[in-house]
Amino acid sequence: MNKVILLANRPVGKPAVSDFKFENIDMPSPKDGEVLLKTTYVSVDPYLRGRMSDAKSYVAPFELNKPMSSAIIAEVTASKNPDFKVGDYITSGLEWKLFQTSNGAGLTKVDPSVSLTAYLGALGMTGLTALMGLQEIGKPKSGETLVVSGAAGAVGSIVGQIGKLMGCRVIGIAGSDDKTAALKSKFGFDEAINYKTTENMQEAIAAAAPDGVDIYFDNVGGEISDAVVFNMNKYGRIAICGTISSYNDTEASQGPRLQPYILKNSMLMQGFIVSNYAEKFPEGIKQLSEWLKAGKLQYSETIVNGFDQIPQAFMDLFEGKNDGKMVVKI
Amino acid sequence: MNKVILLANRPVGKPAVSDFKFENIDMPSPKDGEVLLKTTYVSVDPYLRGRMSDAKSYVAPFELNKPMSSAIIAEVTASKNPDFKVGDYITSGLEWKLFQTSNGAGLTKVDPSVSLTAYLGALGMTGLTALMGLQEIGKPKSGETLVVSGAAGAVGSIVGQIGKLMGCRVIGIAGSDDKTAALKSKFGFDEAINYKTTENMQEAIAAAAPDGVDIYFDNVGGEISDAVVFNMNKYGRIAICGTISSYNDTEASQGPRLQPYILKNSMLMQGFIVSNYAEKFPEGIKQLSEWLKAGKLQYSETIVNGFDQIPQAFMDLFEGKNDGKMVVKI
Repeated sequence: MNKVILLANRPVGKPAVSDFKFENIDMPSPKDGEVLLKTTYVSVDPYLRGRMSDAKSYVAPFELNKPMSSAIIAEVTASKNPDFKVGDYITSGLEWKLFQTSNGAGLTKVDPSVSLTAYLGALGMTGLTALMGLQEIGKPKSGETLVVSGAAGAVGSIVGQIGKLMGCRVIGIAGSDDKTAALKSKFGFDEAINYKTTENMQEAIAAAAPDGVDIYFDNVGGEISDAVVFNMNKYGRIAICGTISSYNDTEASQGPRLQPYILKNSMLMQGFIVSNYAEKFPEGIKQLSEWLKAGKLQYSETIVNGFDQIPQAFMDLFEGKNDGKMVVKI
Repeated sequence: MNKVILLANRPVGKPAVSDFKFENIDMPSPKDGEVLLKTTYVSVDPYLRGRMSDAKSYVAPFELNKPMSSAIIAEVTASKNPDFKVGDYITSGLEWKLFQTSNGAGLTKVDPSVSLTAYLGALGMTGLTALMGLQEIGKPKSGETLVVSGAAGAVGSIVGQIGKLMGCRVIGIAGSDDKTAALKSKFGFDEAINYKTTENMQEAIAAAAPDGVDIYFDNVGGEISDAVVFNMNKYGRIAICGTISSYNDTEASQGPRLQPYILKNSMLMQGFIVSNYAEKFPEGIKQLSEWLKAGKLQYSETIVNGFDQIPQAFMDLFEGKNDGKMVVKI
């Protein structure tokens, strides 16, 4: 039996289970040149929220009553394509189905002797997002101070570790004491701040960054980001990777206008999506693999079981229930 | 008789005449190696407002009960320095005094056969600010759309003309019908919008920029800038040169948070002060001189008469009473 998850409604505010629809569908058979793929791991990521709306964004919106999709690891269970054999594992952007066929375009073989889920995380878009944003926008110099918000998340925890590898003092912001403890003990951050129990974030950041903040890798936006921006130094750089605090907003939230601060300090604020830097991916994956093999990059995963749990796992991202990369095992 | 203008109080909100103090002082005599300078033209500029506060900013604040200073053109009226002779004209950052001495450091000779005031404007910081911000942050490509706010101001009017020279479609925003008329007839802008008589700025910009906005040269901040930002294209660049709408604010003004838009469009927003690009000034002045001599750069000046009028001329900047560069003739 085969199954698919469709987008049933465009959510207003927070996505709900009712915005997704499960359907039983036929088991496909590969034609000549095609492979049959059995989904093994499904990546769920905050940016998918944007694709559920039809507002103009950096990736095309999902269509109503069409399958959802994301980065997936799949096993080749039948092959009529000479480039793939049964038992191969691949990764690609694929639909939320138990089984699907592909002509092979866009499939990348992965090495199952390394952790398969690493290809959805530290060696996949997650790791590349961390590396590209920090390297191309943050441009860290040894001795500088880096602040990361959403620091215990999949991207944030890697950003901080790369920052340390590049010689920065690294301060992480996260939403629980367990997370801030892990930032320091597991990921080697110099300081970690629990924004949920900190009354005055601006003062807390000032205390953790006595020389001011040179680079801010922003995954969250909102008031947390205001508090960081007000602590930044001349020529500070802000890489905007995500604004999870606003993804479920139904209208633009208000906050202090930042232009006067950006002007006074000759600061740079730049938004990005990892695909802007596609030409640097091979070099980036090589670098990430080296660090990973040398034991210099730790990563956390939250693995949820069951195809039926994909929508819930996605929604849990907005409650911060994940520790690192959220993955659904099928 | 000699006179000086001191900073009497740090203004709260709008500066007032009472924030300045006039004093009669002795006529100085040049010592060996010094020149006596007679002030001829005084530049008044919005950025001076920042220096009147003691908040951390990109230039050191003025000290209370010490002289105000700005860019000045002066005539050498006595010289004990072999590098300068009586009758030479120089420009430099100098104090608001009728007469002062200098050891020659930081003085740049100017050619009085060209307009002297051009060295405070199109060939001075004003022209360099326009060129550096547009070139180094805006990075215009032929065929792109450029929006300039504060477009009838000293910097804005030059930005628009350079944008045209670089092949852009140029839209200016200004605060009166006379100004918008001049933007099109005198400075060659393609479109001009009077924000004071336009109900919906976001729609007006969309109508003037049917292909969206690629570059925004921002002199004003506030709601005008929000309306431009919401019209920007993927990879849009915003050069923040000024935020005159906020200079007299006593607390941070609120507005829509821009990070979600900056993220969605992979946009860049960067603040700058012209001195960040000091190493490019010689090349920049050469380029500006060539354009000026070839009649390709028009500029406006508002020249006010009398040393006693310097504070009022400065305050008039915040009412938009200037047409182009505001200069006080002594």
